[in-house]
Amino acid sequence: MTAHESSRPVGAAGSDVESRLAELGLAVPEVVPPVAAYQPVVVADGVVYTAGQLPLIQGELPLTGKVGAEVTEEQAVELARQCALNCLAALKHAVGDLDRIARIAKVGGFVASDPGFFGQPKVLNGASELFGHAFGDLGAHARSAVGVAALPLNAPVEVDVIAHVA
Amino acid sequence: MTAHESSRPVGAAGSDVESRLAELGLAVPEVVPPVAAYQPVVVADGVVYTAGQLPLIQGELPLTGKVGAEVTEEQAVELARQCALNCLAALKHAVGDLDRIARIAKVGGFVASDPGFFGQPKVLNGASELFGHAFGDLGAHARSAVGVAALPLNAPVEVDVIAHVA
Amino acid sequence: MTAHESSRPVGAAGSDVESRLAELGLAVPEVVPPVAAYQPVVVADGVVYTAGQLPLIQGELPLTGKVGAEVTEEQAVELARQCALNCLAALKHAVGDLDRIARIAKVGGFVASDPGFFGQPKVLNGASELFGHAFGDLGAHARSAVGVAALPLNAPVEVDVIAHVA
Repeated sequence: MTAHESSRPVGAAGSDVESRLAELGLAVPEVVPPVAAYQPVVVADGVVYTAGQLPLIQGELPLTGKVGAEVTEEQAVELARQCALNCLAALKHAVGDLDRIARIAKVGGFVASDPGFFGQPKVLNGASELFGHAFGDLGAHARSAVGVAALPLNAPVEVDVIAHVA
Repeated sequence: MTAHESSRPVGAAGSDVESRLAELGLAVPEVVPPVAAYQPVVVADGVVYTAGQLPLIQGELPLTGKVGAEVTEEQAVELARQCALNCLAALKHAVGDLDRIARIAKVGGFVASDPGFFGQPKVLNGASELFGHAFGDLGAHARSAVGVAALPLNAPVEVDVIAHVA
Repeated sequence: MTAHESSRPVGAAGSDVESRLAELGLAVPEVVPPVAAYQPVVVADGVVYTAGQLPLIQGELPLTGKVGAEVTEEQAVELARQCALNCLAALKHAVGDLDRIARIAKVGGFVASDPGFFGQPKVLNGASELFGHAFGDLGAHARSAVGVAALPLNAPVEVDVIAHVA
């Protein structure tokens, strides 16, 4: 249905989106099982809602703590990027092929913040830029970034997404 | 329109959803009047947005304070369940019959947290499990749980919902 | 298409919504450029998602700090109103004419809060009442108000909106 599908290179990782991630040396991870009584992602009437994604890598948080205290801004940028990868895993789980995503519409970014840390936008750029690389113009999204008191498992960053399907 | 409607038992609380709540000894409360200049719920193009619901019971908060400090995790689970009941009241206010809800799509959970409290997922399960009991598979939702610095009226928990109507 | 359009007074600010703002001595500002790698607003399938808007005036924050500490509740009400004006700028950027907005559906309000400050609803009324003035019944929205640990640039308030287009 999309122009993307006809131009998929032979041997690519399964979709144009995944091909672009592969150029960055990245792959969509397995979907992160919910840590509680909810689903990783829900699709309703063409709108895809992901659960808030922590920067888990194979079930483990590489770092814990508040950004601006135990965790640096630079470290948090990388963690936000991992949250975004986990969002991609959730989106793929929902729609099968990431090329079916018509728009990354809204990103919610939550940074566990020392009360004196105000660099939430830079931290969340780790996620936003990944969506941009993966989806091109369709990845350009509205975003709210806030600094919260604490996150599940003492994670430094959490990201969720509302996307629309073609 | 739904299979639910034809199987409604005589004498039930008005809908399949309310019948299932009745099995738990629960009833949908009256909708909580907004504490400020907004509406408890809005429906637009088949999407239902509830306001953030505090764990008010007949206009009173049973407990106040931060979870992990003045309020225990166990107490907060119960409060989250009350928030969810108040969300059901808002949804019913919007659509009349809760059986018209096609999907609980996204739940936002805000826990007023001591900075050292990381059990937000368990707390919010108090809400998520209620939605599951009430709506079955249609109640399985994506969720973001975060720990915030403070909530209105010193409430320990706040929950909002995006649902889709059939 | 709407009844509004035919009743637009000569010389008004371009739309019924802007005329009503003009009665308050207000004008829709220029859209605030994103402070990071995202868009100020996205439209998808008739749903408009704004980015979280800080109370910037011509690129500057009039005040910084936590509400309940460096910033008073009264000051924060005014800042929330500025956030709402910036949301209107984003909505106008998305749809061209604010009269095309069919409903302000959901408002998210984030108040950088001293842990002992619980007046988030009153603060956010600064935004909610502006939406009510500007859009009338179509501006009546669901809202979640929370107190967060910190906001970008040490802003005291951030507001985002989900609106639906006619």
